[in-house]
Amino acid sequence: MYKCSLERMSDKIKTFSTYGDAGHGGITRYSLSEEAIMARNEFKKRMEAIGAIIEVDDVANMYATLPGTDPTAKRIVMASHCDSVKNGGNYDGILGVMSAMEVLETVAEQQIPHKHPLTAMIWTNEEGSLYPPAMMVSGIVCYDYLPEDIRGKFKYEDMMASKSILDPTKTFGQALDASGFKGDKKYRLNPDQYEYMFETHIEQGPILEDAGNDIGVVDCVLGMFNYRVKFYGQAAHAGTFPMAKRKDALFASAQALCYIHEEIDKLNHPELVYTTGEIVCHPCVHTVIPDFVDFSIDARHEDPKVLEKVLAIVKSCEDREWAGCKCVVEKAWNRDTVYWNKKLVGYVEEAATEAGIKHQFIHSGAGHDAQFASYMLPTTMIFVQSKDGLSHCEPEYSTPEHCTEGATVMLNAVLKADAE
Amino acid sequence: MYKCSLERMSDKIKTFSTYGDAGHGGITRYSLSEEAIMARNEFKKRMEAIGAIIEVDDVANMYATLPGTDPTAKRIVMASHCDSVKNGGNYDGILGVMSAMEVLETVAEQQIPHKHPLTAMIWTNEEGSLYPPAMMVSGIVCYDYLPEDIRGKFKYEDMMASKSILDPTKTFGQALDASGFKGDKKYRLNPDQYEYMFETHIEQGPILEDAGNDIGVVDCVLGMFNYRVKFYGQAAHAGTFPMAKRKDALFASAQALCYIHEEIDKLNHPELVYTTGEIVCHPCVHTVIPDFVDFSIDARHEDPKVLEKVLAIVKSCEDREWAGCKCVVEKAWNRDTVYWNKKLVGYVEEAATEAGIKHQFIHSGAGHDAQFASYMLPTTMIFVQSKDGLSHCEPEYSTPEHCTEGATVMLNAVLKADAE
Repeated sequence: MYKCSLERMSDKIKTFSTYGDAGHGGITRYSLSEEAIMARNEFKKRMEAIGAIIEVDDVANMYATLPGTDPTAKRIVMASHCDSVKNGGNYDGILGVMSAMEVLETVAEQQIPHKHPLTAMIWTNEEGSLYPPAMMVSGIVCYDYLPEDIRGKFKYEDMMASKSILDPTKTFGQALDASGFKGDKKYRLNPDQYEYMFETHIEQGPILEDAGNDIGVVDCVLGMFNYRVKFYGQAAHAGTFPMAKRKDALFASAQALCYIHEEIDKLNHPELVYTTGEIVCHPCVHTVIPDFVDFSIDARHEDPKVLEKVLAIVKSCEDREWAGCKCVVEKAWNRDTVYWNKKLVGYVEEAATEAGIKHQFIHSGAGHDAQFASYMLPTTMIFVQSKDGLSHCEPEYSTPEHCTEGATVMLNAVLKADAE
Repeated sequence: MYKCSLERMSDKIKTFSTYGDAGHGGITRYSLSEEAIMARNEFKKRMEAIGAIIEVDDVANMYATLPGTDPTAKRIVMASHCDSVKNGGNYDGILGVMSAMEVLETVAEQQIPHKHPLTAMIWTNEEGSLYPPAMMVSGIVCYDYLPEDIRGKFKYEDMMASKSILDPTKTFGQALDASGFKGDKKYRLNPDQYEYMFETHIEQGPILEDAGNDIGVVDCVLGMFNYRVKFYGQAAHAGTFPMAKRKDALFASAQALCYIHEEIDKLNHPELVYTTGEIVCHPCVHTVIPDFVDFSIDARHEDPKVLEKVLAIVKSCEDREWAGCKCVVEKAWNRDTVYWNKKLVGYVEEAATEAGIKHQFIHSGAGHDAQFASYMLPTTMIFVQSKDGLSHCEPEYSTPEHCTEGATVMLNAVLKADAE
């Protein structure tokens, strides 16, 4: 049982938090931005310092590899991303990169014997905050292995043409060309050279904290659907149009949202989560009755039968009367539950138990690059407790102790995989 | 009893509809835009053709005056605006200008005797679509006469500094300087030179059409309030945060909106109108539980006691529990019911009766420049039937016959005022 270094991990957290520091505790570090390049250079510097070989593929993914003793053994990769959302925190994504670095640094410092080459990896553009979509580059790299309905959204040419949300004259392809990090396609993660993938990530929820556990042994990424619920009414002047003749699309949507909550709550599935995060209202002027409203509904649960029941409720909105408005329910996308490799999940659980770290099994509600990688390689994830369950915001926080425990669990799980 | 010309009115409607033609039946004609200047030049050309004197004040209001026979008599002004909302129709505002032109043209053509000088006027920037607020320039001109709480929003310096919603580097003051229509302050509408004001406008509601009446004799502009209802929750990841711990500001707002509708409907005031037209959601991302939602609530009724009861319901949202979110209700603005001058309302009613035009008394739910003018001069309005009650949209329509009837009623009402 080996242990990672709290001191070295704390130093990394402190250092990486300066790259994109937004001035009030968090960061904005869009993929391939100047700030992200500072983080990439820090990764390169620290990995070269322990003798790792650096490779960069054609979509700017970075790989730092320590050779193993068996020249025929494939690499074991530990990967996450270094980009953030706007005004994000210092842990989402970068913790997985720092944990992978910490594993390699510990292996190098303690001269831990290993057969397989061990690789720490940075995925490009996981958040998709500047150039949508999220998980863009794992979508490109794992393209041939993805289910067809997912694959269609990650065509290389489309991804290169993805426009900056801040400046539509700029594309992801141009940012890639200008980054200095466009390497060789032959270095892309692939199943011929790589055996397994591990990803450490913050939990992004309060389950571990509430249970008093430090580490989550992740078993799956929850299945989900994302639909749009649309209401078509009639615009008219707020001051002159009688109530009885109105077709108010916003009032219709408020009624439907309350109905959806009431009906779904009756299903009584405590592990189900569902969210309306986005609403579009037209024309959105205080003196005009809205003629169009469109809201999102995102639902997640391990069991597809539960999701089916939830979807039936959402779809039933089409058959009901909402303030004189027509309702149309449209699928945006969905995914089935993705289970991690059982053997690797077992290694993580054993490693946590042997290290005496408080842990539990947990599902991932959010998507991660590991999810796409899992269609190509045996893959698993480790979660680190998130304070108050907060993420994608500046107060996002995990203690240095928990972060170091996460790296220790990954190190020992990787060594179990190495020892097969 | 004099009659206006259907042919001439139809020609004006057709001509003005080309200035800002958006290509599918409506117009976009922002105040002081190239399109609005074309409309102003058309006004000038036609008014000069009948011998009217053209004056322009320092805030680009245009006045075309036919002298009367009594050199001591003050002017009677007929006024409206030629600017539109984005993708508006061919009647809102401009109908009042065309009706005023039509009255002067009829007076000139039929050599109708009149003691008072008669003025057709264009108000600048009534819609405030490009440079907010609405009714900006009547606010400036009538400033000294307005109630203090309204006046504060129309300070000259603030209005000149109003930024374009399309290009925040441009101000209304700059647009005014560049327009070629910045004249002399001495020409502003004022009670020393002007006796009465009339404004003809489309109804913007379905009341006349439903009742089978062509013309509305407007008696008041309804009192109203506009409040913001705000919900403060907690952002968290849609996929990872348990339902029981959420503080979802959007669900809170949907519940509150349904509550407000239920409670207000219990008051059972059929003439009351209330609207939530605007909603702001933060961060408005489909994978994030919203932490802030803010919606508008606009309510209008003649009787302030009814509005008080409605406001009490809206304010009671602060005392209730909404999905774990705090609710704050804030006043944006309000106005008391503004009654038109009874004598002028009587002239309009008599004129319609004498012309055999189907008419009824009606309230105005919307605000108009006439409302601010009424604090300075005796003022009244005439409504023309709106097809389907639609306005501020491209299908906005009134028949040429009804438009001409509106001008005929205004002409004869003005002549009654002239004959006092």
